[in-house]
Amino acid sequence: MTRVAQAGDPVLFVGPDRKVKLLRLQPGKRWETHHGIILHDDLIGQPLGRVVYTHKGYPYLVLEPSTADFIQYLKRRTQIIFPKDAAYIVQRLNLHAGVRVIEAGTGSGGLTLAFARAVLPGGHVYTYEERAEHQALARRNLQMVGIEEGITWHVQDIAEGFREEGVDALFLDVRTPWAYLEQVQQALRPGGFFGALVPTTNQVSQLLEGLYAQGFVLVTVEELLLRAYKPVAARLRPEDRMVAHTGYLIFARIAVGEIGPWAAPHLRKVAQRRQAEEEGTPPRPRGGERDDERAQKGG
Amino acid sequence: MTRVAQAGDPVLFVGPDRKVKLLRLQPGKRWETHHGIILHDDLIGQPLGRVVYTHKGYPYLVLEPSTADFIQYLKRRTQIIFPKDAAYIVQRLNLHAGVRVIEAGTGSGGLTLAFARAVLPGGHVYTYEERAEHQALARRNLQMVGIEEGITWHVQDIAEGFREEGVDALFLDVRTPWAYLEQVQQALRPGGFFGALVPTTNQVSQLLEGLYAQGFVLVTVEELLLRAYKPVAARLRPEDRMVAHTGYLIFARIAVGEIGPWAAPHLRKVAQRRQAEEEGTPPRPRGGERDDERAQKGG
Amino acid sequence: MTRVAQAGDPVLFVGPDRKVKLLRLQPGKRWETHHGIILHDDLIGQPLGRVVYTHKGYPYLVLEPSTADFIQYLKRRTQIIFPKDAAYIVQRLNLHAGVRVIEAGTGSGGLTLAFARAVLPGGHVYTYEERAEHQALARRNLQMVGIEEGITWHVQDIAEGFREEGVDALFLDVRTPWAYLEQVQQALRPGGFFGALVPTTNQVSQLLEGLYAQGFVLVTVEELLLRAYKPVAARLRPEDRMVAHTGYLIFARIAVGEIGPWAAPHLRKVAQRRQAEEEGTPPRPRGGERDDERAQKGG
Amino acid sequence: MTRVAQAGDPVLFVGPDRKVKLLRLQPGKRWETHHGIILHDDLIGQPLGRVVYTHKGYPYLVLEPSTADFIQYLKRRTQIIFPKDAAYIVQRLNLHAGVRVIEAGTGSGGLTLAFARAVLPGGHVYTYEERAEHQALARRNLQMVGIEEGITWHVQDIAEGFREEGVDALFLDVRTPWAYLEQVQQALRPGGFFGALVPTTNQVSQLLEGLYAQGFVLVTVEELLLRAYKPVAARLRPEDRMVAHTGYLIFARIAVGEIGPWAAPHLRKVAQRRQAEEEGTPPRPRGGERDDERAQKGG
Repeated sequence: MTRVAQAGDPVLFVGPDRKVKLLRLQPGKRWETHHGIILHDDLIGQPLGRVVYTHKGYPYLVLEPSTADFIQYLKRRTQIIFPKDAAYIVQRLNLHAGVRVIEAGTGSGGLTLAFARAVLPGGHVYTYEERAEHQALARRNLQMVGIEEGITWHVQDIAEGFREEGVDALFLDVRTPWAYLEQVQQALRPGGFFGALVPTTNQVSQLLEGLYAQGFVLVTVEELLLRAYKPVAARLRPEDRMVAHTGYLIFARIAVGEIGPWAAPHLRKVAQRRQAEEEGTPPRPRGGERDDERAQKGG
Repeated sequence: MTRVAQAGDPVLFVGPDRKVKLLRLQPGKRWETHHGIILHDDLIGQPLGRVVYTHKGYPYLVLEPSTADFIQYLKRRTQIIFPKDAAYIVQRLNLHAGVRVIEAGTGSGGLTLAFARAVLPGGHVYTYEERAEHQALARRNLQMVGIEEGITWHVQDIAEGFREEGVDALFLDVRTPWAYLEQVQQALRPGGFFGALVPTTNQVSQLLEGLYAQGFVLVTVEELLLRAYKPVAARLRPEDRMVAHTGYLIFARIAVGEIGPWAAPHLRKVAQRRQAEEEGTPPRPRGGERDDERAQKGG
Repeated sequence: MTRVAQAGDPVLFVGPDRKVKLLRLQPGKRWETHHGIILHDDLIGQPLGRVVYTHKGYPYLVLEPSTADFIQYLKRRTQIIFPKDAAYIVQRLNLHAGVRVIEAGTGSGGLTLAFARAVLPGGHVYTYEERAEHQALARRNLQMVGIEEGITWHVQDIAEGFREEGVDALFLDVRTPWAYLEQVQQALRPGGFFGALVPTTNQVSQLLEGLYAQGFVLVTVEELLLRAYKPVAARLRPEDRMVAHTGYLIFARIAVGEIGPWAAPHLRKVAQRRQAEEEGTPPRPRGGERDDERAQKGG
Repeated sequence: MTRVAQAGDPVLFVGPDRKVKLLRLQPGKRWETHHGIILHDDLIGQPLGRVVYTHKGYPYLVLEPSTADFIQYLKRRTQIIFPKDAAYIVQRLNLHAGVRVIEAGTGSGGLTLAFARAVLPGGHVYTYEERAEHQALARRNLQMVGIEEGITWHVQDIAEGFREEGVDALFLDVRTPWAYLEQVQQALRPGGFFGALVPTTNQVSQLLEGLYAQGFVLVTVEELLLRAYKPVAARLRPEDRMVAHTGYLIFARIAVGEIGPWAAPHLRKVAQRRQAEEEGTPPRPRGGERDDERAQKGG
């Protein structure tokens, strides 16, 4: 049950120096490296998961790429999504085979790819991007890795609204997501999953205001930190440096009816506490945790 | 294109106090809460994503549960996987529709569920658990959420080996994963994706030794930290406390051939550096980052 | 050179259950625990760093408390500073023996204590608090631990200005630090060290605006995370939960002259980049790190 | 009360490009930059905290350096301590004016400097280093910043023991701290403060074993993470990258008597739990937090 490479398959070459090359196998083609030549035909019909050699004898580990590999080695003109965030977004949007999801903007196609992998077969990704040349690059990126179906490409300003209705999930990776929440409400079915990624705290605050004003519920704000270790048994320790910030992830759901109690529970809690304070309730005895209503001490 | 609840569907009730109940809709059944009764029949055939009321007028938000909801509200006898880790494991194992994956142990079924959601349709999850009663609970948990196909349940000690061959991915959530690496090699196809979760650094070191001895390549050790914020626009700040540790995640791939250069690159680097030091190469000028060969300063 | 306890010394009792009691030794006094009585006189004149027993034979480890112990076991009405933050603030304000430092507000005295420990002998702490009863508690707290000199206690609204001039350092732990920056400038000598702690990102933004408007330089914003491990050799792992947020720490220095280039370097960089973009400079090829000017992708 | 620079004072020059130079003012000397010349005599007797200009008109911000600045700009041959760790170590060792502290090894003198700043006047730092040339560099580093008293420099292998007795605190920054714990016990007074920094988890485990075997109490293992933000009011966000690991910090105290209950509380807890499990106590219902005795699920 060994996996055999087919013409058209994307494959990953990893050099002994850990340099990585992603190629799509095509009959008759050759890959010319600094260390010698590899003929695609020598791989087509052969198993992956093994070491191959250039005509000069230089070794490459040849592997089936993963979705995360695809994302990392896409050609890009924009910020690419980090695989850790893509994985978590797929989960929080509840993407699985059969789901219909909208994404804006397309960017370089990293999230488009992760979404397509999750919702196919049976589902569909609708991706919006204002800049035609960016979307064209994303489209080539996905063709390169063999994903060509189940995606609808829209070159369009989402201020004009989305062309789909009743989708299960919708993700905004744009600079001002709060500006499109009415359009989101038009496109997303009741109970649908909404998400957004923004890099600054100011954007988070603006988006929260918009979400509460617009009737979203169960709003969360999170960030995900990935810390890698040097994989050395006798000297195990974290890597010296890490990516410290990729973005704030905001998720919410949309519902109809009298949703007040689920819209902004923190605001409600704050109101209750203020009332309690005015009525003379004694301060909380535990000091180990700070309050979001930190007492004004000086001044 | 509103989503309508069907008999047999799992649904999530969220109270205004944020208490959550997961139920599977069954004709003729009733849910008796402290705040009054809700009849399943009043929901079947009706849209989700809205507010419903008990006979006493107490409101509940009723939603389609997500995979993450399922994981969090499963009945459990063992540690449950955290959704953030499940999402990342699914990605790192490259799970998508059609993939065949082995998991051991079954535990309460949280990861089984996440894997099934990712590989169906077309794929398959083979899950191993030594303790019959644990696996029975996991099985009921997955039935509860409507996932009954595409999973093979083995009550078996994995020391005896896995019954499948050539699977695409394999994940170990057991106390001594290093004890089963030969069995893993028998079951996993060349190029396949291996992963494990262990809670302590000692286990990480032991597993790394085993992986290098057994011919695994591209080994990584990581941990994933999820930091939640209070979703309040005017007073945005992280929650006071967070889960600080759920486990170390180890991933690797398996390959055939002369895989030395990809097996333990760090060890190789260390060897090169030692050699360089013996030959009198000057110390690195930058002091901002520590070395895993920290100089012995005193003593 | 064993340390011998004197009348008036604060001592720390740690039970086998890790419960901690901080007491000041007074001749003739007794401490009545649930497990029996300890006479202060049995400790006065005796060495610390040993196990003592109640009259019922229950053991307590008796130790000289550290500054961090003092901070944690102070009586409090307000949020107390976390020791990790206190240590870092002391360093960033460059406090050492001989330094004069202003603090507002006093709160429960945790930071007052850390500052006094750092600047004595020779230095001085001037602490401001509007609420007399809070400052009275802080004062009793510091008497309890034997620190009574080198501190001037002001019950005063700092909007009226500070009474000192030319101090070396000044720290604001108040809700609206940006409201007092003119007063800070009057009190702090050129080159002096300024710091503040605020819990929300909104406050950070407001304070940054104020600092740049008011002529502060070398402004930094940081947070410090302390992650504890279970100290078990054979099963080393982080504690399950941790304090995820204690506050954002802002530091700056104050200088005279044409300080533009040091005031808001990021703003300058952003301006340069915007200009470059307008002039058609190509986008940065590396996508591994996000920009604070994240490209608007959709919309 | 402006601070005036004296001959012999260390001063910090910060260019508009944020490049930093640390110099000690000496009459008659000149600093030749790429942007022109600055005469030391033009600064001696003048206030700091202002902008000065080279003879070509290039501006520098001139400031009194802080302890953290000193640490960062020391000349080094070894890994330097990070200021955040130095600050926390000073606190956890309870260093303040009058305290006697031993340090090994000296390294480049960063921690020596932080310790001296904390314990002077009245206290003393005894620093040990086996490699004479390293200690000589550290000594020059401290002279450069004007700290010449209150430090005893020992060029010596600490395996031979420390020359002092009854010191208040002792810190080991060496590769195998567990090898010197008997020597530590000889030097540290009962109740004294012990600390160590090691980069790998394997070293932490070995040190913990040693500490429990040797009668140390109240042992903790921690790490401190510093996350910096871009100080931009309208686009507040963390820096893209951060230092992810500087070392594990281990602290303990030393006590005499029957100290068993305070020596290894976790081991005791584990023993109790094992006993409970054998006696058939039901598993804990809460699954949100993992146990250090993670259930073996598969296998």
